[in-house]
Amino acid sequence: MVAATASLDTLCINSIRMLAVDAVNKANSGHPGLPMGCAPMGYTLWDQFLHHNPKNPQWFNRDRFVLSAGHGCMLVYSLLHLTGYDSVSIEDIKQFRQWGSRTPGHPETFETPGVEVTAGPLGAGISNAVGLAIAEAHLAAKFNKPEAKIVDHFTYVVMGDGCNQEGISSEACSLAGHLKLGKLIALYDDNHITIDGRTDVSFTEDVLKRYEAYGWHVQHVANGDTDVNAIAKAIAAAKAVTDKPSIIKVTTTIGYGSPNKSDTAGVHGAPLGEEEATLTRQQLGWNYGPFEIPQEAYDQYRKAIDQGARLESEWNQALANYRSQYPNEAAEFERMLRGELPKGWDKDLPTYTPEDSGLATRKHSQICLGALGPNLPELIGGSADLTHSNYTDIKGETGSFQPETPEKRYLHFGVREHAMAAILNGIAYHNSGLIPYGGTFLVFADYMRGSMRLSALSELGVIYVLTHDSIGVGEDGPTHQPVETIPSLRAMPNMLVFRPGDGNETSGAYKLAIQNRKRPSSLCLSRQGMANQANSSIENVALGGYVLEDCEGTADLILIGTGTELDLCVQAAKQLSAAGHKIRVVSMPCVELFEEQSSAYKQEVLPNAVRKRIVVEAAESFGWHKYIGIDGDSVTMNSFGASAPGGTCMEKFGFTVENVVAKSKALLN
Amino acid sequence: MVAATASLDTLCINSIRMLAVDAVNKANSGHPGLPMGCAPMGYTLWDQFLHHNPKNPQWFNRDRFVLSAGHGCMLVYSLLHLTGYDSVSIEDIKQFRQWGSRTPGHPETFETPGVEVTAGPLGAGISNAVGLAIAEAHLAAKFNKPEAKIVDHFTYVVMGDGCNQEGISSEACSLAGHLKLGKLIALYDDNHITIDGRTDVSFTEDVLKRYEAYGWHVQHVANGDTDVNAIAKAIAAAKAVTDKPSIIKVTTTIGYGSPNKSDTAGVHGAPLGEEEATLTRQQLGWNYGPFEIPQEAYDQYRKAIDQGARLESEWNQALANYRSQYPNEAAEFERMLRGELPKGWDKDLPTYTPEDSGLATRKHSQICLGALGPNLPELIGGSADLTHSNYTDIKGETGSFQPETPEKRYLHFGVREHAMAAILNGIAYHNSGLIPYGGTFLVFADYMRGSMRLSALSELGVIYVLTHDSIGVGEDGPTHQPVETIPSLRAMPNMLVFRPGDGNETSGAYKLAIQNRKRPSSLCLSRQGMANQANSSIENVALGGYVLEDCEGTADLILIGTGTELDLCVQAAKQLSAAGHKIRVVSMPCVELFEEQSSAYKQEVLPNAVRKRIVVEAAESFGWHKYIGIDGDSVTMNSFGASAPGGTCMEKFGFTVENVVAKSKALLN
Repeated sequence: MVAATASLDTLCINSIRMLAVDAVNKANSGHPGLPMGCAPMGYTLWDQFLHHNPKNPQWFNRDRFVLSAGHGCMLVYSLLHLTGYDSVSIEDIKQFRQWGSRTPGHPETFETPGVEVTAGPLGAGISNAVGLAIAEAHLAAKFNKPEAKIVDHFTYVVMGDGCNQEGISSEACSLAGHLKLGKLIALYDDNHITIDGRTDVSFTEDVLKRYEAYGWHVQHVANGDTDVNAIAKAIAAAKAVTDKPSIIKVTTTIGYGSPNKSDTAGVHGAPLGEEEATLTRQQLGWNYGPFEIPQEAYDQYRKAIDQGARLESEWNQALANYRSQYPNEAAEFERMLRGELPKGWDKDLPTYTPEDSGLATRKHSQICLGALGPNLPELIGGSADLTHSNYTDIKGETGSFQPETPEKRYLHFGVREHAMAAILNGIAYHNSGLIPYGGTFLVFADYMRGSMRLSALSELGVIYVLTHDSIGVGEDGPTHQPVETIPSLRAMPNMLVFRPGDGNETSGAYKLAIQNRKRPSSLCLSRQGMANQANSSIENVALGGYVLEDCEGTADLILIGTGTELDLCVQAAKQLSAAGHKIRVVSMPCVELFEEQSSAYKQEVLPNAVRKRIVVEAAESFGWHKYIGIDGDSVTMNSFGASAPGGTCMEKFGFTVENVVAKSKALLN
Repeated sequence: MVAATASLDTLCINSIRMLAVDAVNKANSGHPGLPMGCAPMGYTLWDQFLHHNPKNPQWFNRDRFVLSAGHGCMLVYSLLHLTGYDSVSIEDIKQFRQWGSRTPGHPETFETPGVEVTAGPLGAGISNAVGLAIAEAHLAAKFNKPEAKIVDHFTYVVMGDGCNQEGISSEACSLAGHLKLGKLIALYDDNHITIDGRTDVSFTEDVLKRYEAYGWHVQHVANGDTDVNAIAKAIAAAKAVTDKPSIIKVTTTIGYGSPNKSDTAGVHGAPLGEEEATLTRQQLGWNYGPFEIPQEAYDQYRKAIDQGARLESEWNQALANYRSQYPNEAAEFERMLRGELPKGWDKDLPTYTPEDSGLATRKHSQICLGALGPNLPELIGGSADLTHSNYTDIKGETGSFQPETPEKRYLHFGVREHAMAAILNGIAYHNSGLIPYGGTFLVFADYMRGSMRLSALSELGVIYVLTHDSIGVGEDGPTHQPVETIPSLRAMPNMLVFRPGDGNETSGAYKLAIQNRKRPSSLCLSRQGMANQANSSIENVALGGYVLEDCEGTADLILIGTGTELDLCVQAAKQLSAAGHKIRVVSMPCVELFEEQSSAYKQEVLPNAVRKRIVVEAAESFGWHKYIGIDGDSVTMNSFGASAPGGTCMEKFGFTVENVVAKSKALLN
């Protein structure tokens, strides 16, 4: 119960609560429960601790605030509005969840300046936060000098029961504990309620004990509904622990203030309604109308504006000093913040001729990483415990990012694919020029697809190095042989899917992946070797698809190939040409980029009149009919694979020159 | 070091080790490290504890043995061979990882009788085991009588560091602790090594403390390399704890016995080679040739044959007694074990006419579950904390599967999609007639795709209830709006993807999902309502696609629709027909089933000559060109969605009758 004469703190806290109630009521849709319960921790954190500049949401050295329980987005919209961000006016809040608004139903970085990560899929935000903290620790170790800490901020998270139930957070938080990320502080909204009812229908573990097992510093605030002092003390204590990430379990009442709906699942994801909103106003002693905030509350919150300006100005001064003392480091640092690639970053990307020995594209990938590494210091990444299979190491570099060596840029993610992707997203969200990449087997893209989707949705230039890209994997068998994985990635909007067919195309794929800072790339790479083609090139990959081998005049038939199957097309075309057929071979390393070319170019490559077309790819044919149509054919996989040597698998499933020739002849006749 | 005069135990243990060494060497591919390290726990468990019948791998009441660390499959193949399973002869072991063999590179249920779950993707096996233990607990509570325990077995698991790093196992084991699954016992192979090197590059958490936090009983065997007594004691102690699942951390040496490669990542996934194999023989005092097992070892292991026959015979006697005392229960139990559906199971599935009010298909789904529930007692499932959104409850039933009420069939999975899918797989692997289903939002299929793939690969008839199937989700926005999810599921072999377009089609989808016990089904269901069609029917769904509305003579244009967009096609066809065009409307609730129809039928529905075809589906067009070809068009989603009321989203993204008509006219002209 709240006193009738509200203190300033209470007024500020209730401002959040009532904005949430009013916005959700007006939208007739949304989640009031969390912002009502988390208002005290949100207010305390933003009022007493968070370093930020409302008038420059992109100020580099701000603390990052991540709302991992994204459905409670009215918490962050309220805080952005109350502290004076231009991105969230009271009109924006009235437009909550409406078409074209800056206050969508879950927070999205691309809609609302001040939102640090796109959240909603549970567990993703806390895992992104691990990436943000890694980015901070890495850049601090790389650039800071004893007397000049130009990189120095905390990453704060509000997470809920759902976040703590999702496996992705277990993976990420175990790694965060290992890495001793002392500047990561999570506030866990322990409100006992999930959608199915009380958490005790399925979730009775001792969460803090689990985090202790991960190596975290743990605290409990028993009364998160009103005890601002206890929250503040806990955050201060967490900040003081510099060699461990911290979690503060804050026990709250979901929907606090609502006399009939608080502490029930009913307030999680549904409007209170007018009547209950009135009762809530009465219970909270809130004498203001909908969307009305008392000036005292605004005044208190908006101290953040002056404070933010001062913080940024101090930092600018520090950076100026740094610039004069360490001009080279400063130039590098500022180039990265501008998102500019260094001159000559791609100059060592290798090219090949057919005389060069035919390597696996995963091996070409390793060579590319070695060629990029020295010229592109912002490249940072690793593997989910498959370094020696993915070949994700950067040649010539030793050691990895560990608690004692955060300046290193190789990351051992452990067997944690989903956390890896979320952490890579977090590094990209840090928006400090770092270019994150991560490797696993292509088939295990399935384990991290939730976060790959968020890379695509949030326009993050993450590079996924996905090796062992077909039944060519061989003996490990169907659990390890992707069949449907490539089409399933191609179906995702804003995801570039590369399947290079030789060394040149691998270099081209890397070049494009690095250049595309607003969309993720999936590099699908082979376990096994393949020939280098005569007419492939780095430049051609940018076209997505191109004529690799051609005939005189109009082709009778077009063979379309990717990856390890490209050479099958070339060999088949030779045999068919020798038999008098006019055959064109199209290499299609990136369908998405091909789609972006002009209609004229696409017609040039795949003339409408030539309908005899065969695609050859050791994956499901799903999606290829866009090019082969109803009249074409395919040499593709229509079932799961099998355990046997890779060459045997390829042969048994029909990936032979003979079969391509036979299918072509059947179509030609 | 091992004494020169080996004890019988040591001989038996080394039999496993050397079979692994020899098989991997012969295949020149595979993972010898785990079976060499886990041989003592494998031997101890199978020799002293495991109830099984080598001559009847399908004997119902056997203990289940799950090798979650599937790459170490030579452990289970060795044990199957040594204890006398006909499925794994010494010749089979010599064919390890070869085309057509019964000893593939990772264990697969559909290849090798005696293998309980398909493993390889890490963390999946232990999570399946939670499902096996749930199935056992449920059936025991349902069928056992105080004096007649016809369901009574343990589920044992061997898991590795990788399994413990994967989030899926965290989810599943947290739930197992909550559910107090006392007959689940995991042996954790703590060998300090992963592919990237020593586990301490990324994994330094206190694993047992974490499991304690989950509510598990925990033990540690310090010397798992030779201390058979300690292993046996720990297993006995774990069996005695009946109100908690147990984990026994068994510290081992990976590749034990190999003088130069043990305790290194080098022995994890590569052959020892001839030379090191010889040295290993010397170190282990193993005086036998490749694939040669001393008779004493066979004799010891194959006591399992007589013991197994006796166990099964005792159980048969118990079942006979049960049958005479409880004929109805016995009939039900035995029907389920035969995999027979009860008579009239589908008799209450509802049908509809256009006069019936247009509900959301998620609501139709709830009605189907209510209609099936009473007639199909083997239906068991729940939701990943979205019961009141997915409508996955069975009408009229109260309560859920909890430690005190395992006879209940509703499962609260918590916010744990990936574990849910793996647990559903586990229930299916139990092969006792249970029909598992689980719900979440369609977009979160991404979180559990790794295990959905295993449902498909392992031929498990799991039913996925995936609601909120398009941008029609509305205000929750693009993180919650599937766009590419339906195509990505359609790309998966052996997965039936249903997107019913009204009430009849929802009933049809359920009927087929229940009937298909060898492949999983994904039911993609709408949040929002839609009209009931005049010519839809349960039977038509079995055809996958069918003519819903037709014109006289040959159509000028065919509209193909699914789900909520089906009625758009019907309305557009009316307008176009009124304007003098001949329009056919094809409903395509299940592409996979349509593909399985005869060519003649497919031609009948989509005549080759009619190339003006438009598909209308609020999802990526990816995959639809198989039917619309190069000359057709589509009204589909080519980007992520947006946060706004569902109707607004549909309209803004072009899902209107007007737009379908306009696109049709453009194509007709």
